[in-house]
Amino acid sequence: MAQPATAAPSALPPLAISLGDPAGVGPELIAAAWALRESAALPPFFVAQGAGLLADAAEQRGLEIAIAPITDPADAQAAFADALPVLGTGDGPYRPGNPDGAGAQLALSSLTLATELALSGAASGLVTGPIAKALLAQVGFRHPGQTEFVAEACRVSAQDAVMLLAGPSLRTVPLTVHCALAEVPGLLSADLIRRRSEIAARGLASDFGISNPRLAICALNPHAGEGGRFGREEALVIAPAIAALREMGIDASGPHPADSLFSPHLRDSFDVAICMYHDQALIPLKALDFDHGVNMTLGLPIVRTSPDHGTAFAIAGTGAADPGAMIAAIGMAGEAAARRAAT
Amino acid sequence: MAQPATAAPSALPPLAISLGDPAGVGPELIAAAWALRESAALPPFFVAQGAGLLADAAEQRGLEIAIAPITDPADAQAAFADALPVLGTGDGPYRPGNPDGAGAQLALSSLTLATELALSGAASGLVTGPIAKALLAQVGFRHPGQTEFVAEACRVSAQDAVMLLAGPSLRTVPLTVHCALAEVPGLLSADLIRRRSEIAARGLASDFGISNPRLAICALNPHAGEGGRFGREEALVIAPAIAALREMGIDASGPHPADSLFSPHLRDSFDVAICMYHDQALIPLKALDFDHGVNMTLGLPIVRTSPDHGTAFAIAGTGAADPGAMIAAIGMAGEAAARRAAT
Repeated sequence: MAQPATAAPSALPPLAISLGDPAGVGPELIAAAWALRESAALPPFFVAQGAGLLADAAEQRGLEIAIAPITDPADAQAAFADALPVLGTGDGPYRPGNPDGAGAQLALSSLTLATELALSGAASGLVTGPIAKALLAQVGFRHPGQTEFVAEACRVSAQDAVMLLAGPSLRTVPLTVHCALAEVPGLLSADLIRRRSEIAARGLASDFGISNPRLAICALNPHAGEGGRFGREEALVIAPAIAALREMGIDASGPHPADSLFSPHLRDSFDVAICMYHDQALIPLKALDFDHGVNMTLGLPIVRTSPDHGTAFAIAGTGAADPGAMIAAIGMAGEAAARRAAT
Repeated sequence: MAQPATAAPSALPPLAISLGDPAGVGPELIAAAWALRESAALPPFFVAQGAGLLADAAEQRGLEIAIAPITDPADAQAAFADALPVLGTGDGPYRPGNPDGAGAQLALSSLTLATELALSGAASGLVTGPIAKALLAQVGFRHPGQTEFVAEACRVSAQDAVMLLAGPSLRTVPLTVHCALAEVPGLLSADLIRRRSEIAARGLASDFGISNPRLAICALNPHAGEGGRFGREEALVIAPAIAALREMGIDASGPHPADSLFSPHLRDSFDVAICMYHDQALIPLKALDFDHGVNMTLGLPIVRTSPDHGTAFAIAGTGAADPGAMIAAIGMAGEAAARRAAT
């Protein structure tokens, strides 16, 4: 007999959360999110590793919370109401603002465990805390970032793991990310734009319930090149990609001049803006939604989100870090997991 | 005997306003600004040319306003309280949304007259309405835009006429503007950044009364290049310019990662963001201040502002265009003129 639809979410496995760098704001924000679980209507989650560290981070933030050590993700559901469930025995001292190799090692162990549990289905999704890439590289992490690590664990090409940045005002997808601006024009191709836009469209349907999402494809050049006067990428690369997307039945428009696309008059006219480079996607998101931005990876077999901020070592342990983005990342992962489970 | 300080502004000559393309939203927004002159505390201004056209545009917008034809800018002061003063006999039919060569000719005649009067001192500043560059080019206008036209009239090199975009939340200066994104890295030099930043700093002092302005210099690459991993322009070009500015006693900081610089947490930490390319400066401004953005030209012997929007032919004559930016442009020109006169 089918479960009634309203019971479905509670039947889902819990979300797995990785600590991030233990000297950053990750641990205290996870604790803060747990403390706000009821008002924020968060689904059950557990943290991979760091039980003692999370208790210390919570205490330093002035939060009175209990930690519930668990050995099976399935135990998180029952424990969650009264304590923050933590799986795994890895731990270390809480030294906010003072990252070191041992902390990076713990961050990696937490990320590895949480990813494995999401992949096995024991967790319904993965939320990753912020890491320090340079430190992780020193302890043998060979990926440019967590997204590429998770993609490889999922056996998905990094090219097909699409970064979506989502806030209350806006969703954007940067098609190129960590490269020099000078390299961007050479990295863009009609095929790249088409392929990643298609993954974005599918992800908005599966994870956000937007069945026919409106994609606004940004221009690369100012004023969309003004008919070729300032660059030909719009005509040669972007417009053909849009045509191909439309032929596939995807509601893609553009190339739009990027300067006005994020104005209040136009923000409601699309579900996602497909951006040609990092800052084109991140400037409007951080200007409008700084404390609530979520980084979600589309195109993976698992749900994966992350708060869109860094380790913020400078304010770790001071209580100044806002938990809004962590809460939004957990909530968004929970909703996406529930949507996937329901279909 | 010295005038009391409070009387100084009223002793200033009026501002000169050019029509912009008569088929665009310029005329109706000038009329709307005049209608709101008291609540917006606008200084006296007159329009160069287009008396009949302005009357028709006002009527179509449902505004009952009188036009006062004047033959001397000095007459605008007395006429302004009861009617919109218009100088010059050039005119044409009001055909919103239907631009043509005759209209472009009138826009050019209005711009030329208003600029001359600002240069002669008969007007205390110049506010330009939005034009259609392609149409103007067809009637012999050989400048890329109005800024370059005004700079040449002022005998200032276009390189030293610095565009400042200003809204209630933010001020930005794009160091490069109408060029392909691929050309931006090659156009930047330490000398260009230093020179235009210096002009911006002087302009903020003279026109905004900020005696020691804080300049936030943006990076070109994402994450400011992450120590050279994604581009070397920060180290080779931008940092040397910042060092040179600081040696001159200018409060310049950076290179700042541009994605987070416009977040609410950082926006109050600077008076102007110096941006490396068009969309870096325009995306945050239009996302935050769309209906109130002003384009001001610094580095000129005259005060010059413009509403930061185009002709908007599609909505001209419908009443949908918001006069906020035109009102802000007139107000900002008036304040800058008063500051210059007082020093």
